[in-house]
Amino acid sequence: MKNYDVIIIGGGHAGIEASLASARMGAETLLITQNLDHIGQMSCNPAIGGIAKGHVVREIDAMGGEMGQNTDASALQFKMLNSSRGPAVWSPRAQCDKVLYQRRMKQQLEKTPKLHTHQAEGLSFVTEKGKVIAVQTQFGDKFEAKAFVLCCGTFMRGLMHFGPQQLPGGRTGDTAADAISDSLKNDLGLELMRLKTGTPPRVLAKTIDFDQLERQDGESGKFSYWTRDKAYETIDRGGIPQMPCYIGRTSAETKRVITENLHLSPMYNGSIDAIGTRYCPSIEDKIHRFADKDSHQIFLEPEGVFTEEYYLNGISTSLPVHVQNQIVHSIPGLENAEIARYAYAVEYDVVSPHQTLNSLALKPWPNLFVAGQINGTSGYEEAAGQGLIAGANAAGLVAGKPPLVLERDQAYIGVMIDDLVTKDISEPYRLFTSRAEYRLLLRQDNADRRLSKIAYDYGLLPYEKYKIIEEKETLINNEIERLKNERSHGKSLWEHLSSHKNTYDSVVGESDFSEEIKEQIQIDARYECYIQREKQQVERQKRLAKNPIPEEIDYLNMTGLSNEARNKLSRYRPVDLGQAARIDGVTPAEIGLIQVHIKRWEESQKIKA
Amino acid sequence: MKNYDVIIIGGGHAGIEASLASARMGAETLLITQNLDHIGQMSCNPAIGGIAKGHVVREIDAMGGEMGQNTDASALQFKMLNSSRGPAVWSPRAQCDKVLYQRRMKQQLEKTPKLHTHQAEGLSFVTEKGKVIAVQTQFGDKFEAKAFVLCCGTFMRGLMHFGPQQLPGGRTGDTAADAISDSLKNDLGLELMRLKTGTPPRVLAKTIDFDQLERQDGESGKFSYWTRDKAYETIDRGGIPQMPCYIGRTSAETKRVITENLHLSPMYNGSIDAIGTRYCPSIEDKIHRFADKDSHQIFLEPEGVFTEEYYLNGISTSLPVHVQNQIVHSIPGLENAEIARYAYAVEYDVVSPHQTLNSLALKPWPNLFVAGQINGTSGYEEAAGQGLIAGANAAGLVAGKPPLVLERDQAYIGVMIDDLVTKDISEPYRLFTSRAEYRLLLRQDNADRRLSKIAYDYGLLPYEKYKIIEEKETLINNEIERLKNERSHGKSLWEHLSSHKNTYDSVVGESDFSEEIKEQIQIDARYECYIQREKQQVERQKRLAKNPIPEEIDYLNMTGLSNEARNKLSRYRPVDLGQAARIDGVTPAEIGLIQVHIKRWEESQKIKA
Ligand SMILES: Cc1cc2nc3c(=O)[nH]c(=O)nc-3n(C[C@H](O)[C@H](O)[C@H](O)COP(=O)(O)OP(=O)(O)OC[C@H]3O[C@@H](n4cnc5c(N)ncnc54)[C@H](O)[C@@H]3O)c2cc1C
Ligand SMILES: Cc1cc2nc3c(=O)[nH]c(=O)nc-3n(C[C@H](O)[C@H](O)[C@H](O)COP(=O)(O)OP(=O)(O)OC[C@H]3O[C@@H](n4cnc5c(N)ncnc54)[C@H](O)[C@@H]3O)c2cc1C
Repeated sequence: MKNYDVIIIGGGHAGIEASLASARMGAETLLITQNLDHIGQMSCNPAIGGIAKGHVVREIDAMGGEMGQNTDASALQFKMLNSSRGPAVWSPRAQCDKVLYQRRMKQQLEKTPKLHTHQAEGLSFVTEKGKVIAVQTQFGDKFEAKAFVLCCGTFMRGLMHFGPQQLPGGRTGDTAADAISDSLKNDLGLELMRLKTGTPPRVLAKTIDFDQLERQDGESGKFSYWTRDKAYETIDRGGIPQMPCYIGRTSAETKRVITENLHLSPMYNGSIDAIGTRYCPSIEDKIHRFADKDSHQIFLEPEGVFTEEYYLNGISTSLPVHVQNQIVHSIPGLENAEIARYAYAVEYDVVSPHQTLNSLALKPWPNLFVAGQINGTSGYEEAAGQGLIAGANAAGLVAGKPPLVLERDQAYIGVMIDDLVTKDISEPYRLFTSRAEYRLLLRQDNADRRLSKIAYDYGLLPYEKYKIIEEKETLINNEIERLKNERSHGKSLWEHLSSHKNTYDSVVGESDFSEEIKEQIQIDARYECYIQREKQQVERQKRLAKNPIPEEIDYLNMTGLSNEARNKLSRYRPVDLGQAARIDGVTPAEIGLIQVHIKRWEESQKIKA
Repeated sequence: MKNYDVIIIGGGHAGIEASLASARMGAETLLITQNLDHIGQMSCNPAIGGIAKGHVVREIDAMGGEMGQNTDASALQFKMLNSSRGPAVWSPRAQCDKVLYQRRMKQQLEKTPKLHTHQAEGLSFVTEKGKVIAVQTQFGDKFEAKAFVLCCGTFMRGLMHFGPQQLPGGRTGDTAADAISDSLKNDLGLELMRLKTGTPPRVLAKTIDFDQLERQDGESGKFSYWTRDKAYETIDRGGIPQMPCYIGRTSAETKRVITENLHLSPMYNGSIDAIGTRYCPSIEDKIHRFADKDSHQIFLEPEGVFTEEYYLNGISTSLPVHVQNQIVHSIPGLENAEIARYAYAVEYDVVSPHQTLNSLALKPWPNLFVAGQINGTSGYEEAAGQGLIAGANAAGLVAGKPPLVLERDQAYIGVMIDDLVTKDISEPYRLFTSRAEYRLLLRQDNADRRLSKIAYDYGLLPYEKYKIIEEKETLINNEIERLKNERSHGKSLWEHLSSHKNTYDSVVGESDFSEEIKEQIQIDARYECYIQREKQQVERQKRLAKNPIPEEIDYLNMTGLSNEARNKLSRYRPVDLGQAARIDGVTPAEIGLIQVHIKRWEESQKIKA
């Protein structure tokens, strides 16, 4: 049997980026997944990106990941959300051909040197001297490696709910992965928790009355920084055409049906113990919580070119199937719609993330990394972002590199992981721009400028790619320099450009720069003072973070802490004061206390030595 | 809930043609299948057609089915097998892009008017007064209809074997369907039996040394009669390119590995009770049975454009996975090959076909039809052919039409179904040209001339299509008439043409006829006397079949029959003397006996009346 450096378990969105990152860093990498045909399957929405999620896709792309290019190559339509607002919240989003996305992704993995794909279910870990040394599969194979990344998504003890019907499974069409969950608990002693998520019904095109719906076409745009020379229209998508989405609304009848049947929802009658996401609520949640609203918007999204199924974005539900039929038929345009697949909710095990480091290694098992939905997040992009970091760190560990940790001022991925490991999760975690303190730094348009160097330095991005960004950066900086020095009407060109009335073209006139570079300069000029302010905040935060917290600090016996702070600090064990300060329920006064405590402890150590 | 005419359970190759046939005949048709994404999945080989199977695809196509066109639209390469031999055994075969085949087929169903696709597992049948009236699904839905077609493939109590490892499942990636099997036994009182089939491992392209293999390219050709104006090269396949296959051979080392490990095969150590197919044997079967052969040929077939997986045609096995690795590595060119998916065998329940009529209705349940692998066959084409007949008959029953039964002299599909219902099955049934008595009548090139009228008359084929064949037939007949009347050198042109030295062109010279028509005329002329002889045999057989056997005939008390004949006749209950004569173990003398017995019975009835 081959000797692997890194083994990834689970070929979802997290496992994909983890596998690619690891192999691209030169580690002999094995991906074990239950069904090769389901690599990169979109369990829910056939769409990538959106608010804050689009930022993450750009970040993954900037660091050499695949999600952006794969989305571009399978897009049915592209949209820049929030484009009427400030650049910090612009968010790219694409509707994809679900099957093309999957197939192309599978092939990317298969083609990648040093990456080996193997169909099997991982059942349990074998440990030796505090390290994980092997994973055992259903076929009795025992694969050894130096580091492992676990990316089981919604599959660990997955249980699907269709109203009162319960079926074991990771999602429809896939069996659950129960054994690995037992192994985490029993062999590795990890604490697991239970979360849930849901998906709406799919209906058949020929039964939809599109005339009653509002048509929404896409625009030109794309995710990847690496195909900048290719227009959206010229990307090779195997000839698939562009497709519109449609907008509809629920009616008073929808509200009535749901209100009358609410007691049948497993979320409301107690059959699901797990906690669902507040941010992707089911239609019964929405009707229940926003009782004053008469109608909710829904999007009808095509699932692909070779299917007549439409995804009903907005009516995720776990109500019984007969109620689902009534809900669908109550929506104007869907009076005669036929449900091809019913909506359902799925409950699954999560590795409680207080056991995890920012590198995504587990605190008690330093060569086992966790990424994706099993860390308590929800969403393909969140999963992929974690996968990239976990895969890089697994390969980094094998190569003897220090961990790769993105900071909160460097990437949404950093914000997300830091949130996960410092905040109690009580529902699936989803990214929002509001989760970031430094939104003007973390824009979707500058992910390459923020992250490509980091990725290149860590070995994730080849020099040919990094060079492009390096050259772009030089061009931008030189031009900014020039604009600051050249003056007209008593002000520098830079000052002119900082006015919202002006554009680069109006200030400079004709130039050789690409639209991309002009846009960067313009944003830098316009938002300079806000950006500067955020940078100062970052500095302050960094100074705080410079104070590492020794592992030996004992919160339980520290006087002056509230019980909540004491418990959370013991649970999360923050690595520095910055992280401690971000824990919900820990006050600035308590941070001061801890700081004093650390000083005292350090002095006592000196005396001992 | 909608009122359906016909409900099909199972969206494999049988269920697909059944659904389409039923809906095209105007019946409101519901297809219930476990996973919509797996409609038309090729569980094994990514290829359609081959010896005798290619004939069936042509027959399906001639009758308005979809398999031929779908194959053409997803073909990676086409070949006419046996083209150096006589026209009776020419057999078209195409390698397909597995995923494209599936996706396109799914969409064909979704687009078909009156056909409704629904994702669910059918659990049990509800009966009333000797009729099936509804099927119940896992979601608690109870769908009613006037006729049902069951097409569960390898899924009923499916059990997969990877050496000693046993996993329940219909095939990898799909759960088994156990409940419906229980319902057949317990609710419907049917007799089930157990069969098995197997599939080889898939290996990754980047680990194959193609230089050690022999490359095989395809040729120009296609299945469908309905795209005759389109050249192979111009069929829309979404831009997928053509791909070669490769030929390799097992080595002495392969033989050694298998011989040493034979005791580990569940087929040899008794862990599989079911019976496998002699015609698609596993590699251990081949090594065991042909012990004198040093080496066996294998074909490496691409699984599609968007995958690097290759199918190892020829080494299907259920040996343990570590032995599979050794087998693969013993093949020159595969020394370093990595297995992405292991080979396995699957065992499943079959509805013993002696309970089935030639219409594919079940004798005790006249509105429940069965088609495909659950009738004991193996192969996509065999399944699809049955599906078409079962679907047509289900819709025909609802419309009050007499059953559509293809005779042994009309179609391979007829031969197959008649074999199934008259012969004891002890292994999965596969079609061969040798199974047909009238091979010169049942050619792959004349399926349209044989079957389009039958399909049109039954309502399966629209007039626009039938008209094309009608016109072709007229052209052929008029031309044959002319050739018979026109003379040169003392012989009619027809007589000249009957010589194997001549071709239509050499005899007639320039003409306006298409190659297709010229080929038909040439074959008709060359093989006229053989064709005539077969037609006479058909007539004799028909005279025998004119003697229907009354249902009341009691074989158990008929003197003069051998025990074997008595048992088989009671079991199969042939509908006429022709069918009785085809039952294995029933002699011509016994047929005479039965004939006398019938006469006597009829006279006794007359007296009674
Ligand atoms: C019903 C449903 C509804 C959802 N709704 C939403 C939504 O509304 N919004 C949203 O943002 N997200 C939603 N999601 C979540 C989204 O699908 C996930 O966030 C995303 O797919 C997570 O990616 P992942 O890589 O972590 O795991 P997954 O995509 O779940 O992939 C896990 C992979 O690991 C494999 N695997 C698991 N265990 C093993 C094992 N032991 N051995 C080998 N392989 C294994 C599985 O086969 C699978 O391929 C939904 C998911 C489901 C199932
Ligand atoms: C491992 C393996 C190896 C094989 N090897 C060969 C080979 O070497 N040569 C060869 O010619 N053939 C082979 N076959 C057989 C070939 O796949 C079948 O002959 C063909 O697919 C049969 O078509 P079908 O329509 O009868 O059933 P299938 O293609 O098996 O389709 C059955 C469908 O019904 C659905 N279904 C089943 N039960 C239910 C239910 N209760 N409710 C709803 N849906 C249901 C399933 O999900 C599936 O979609 C192999 C099959 C397998 C699994």
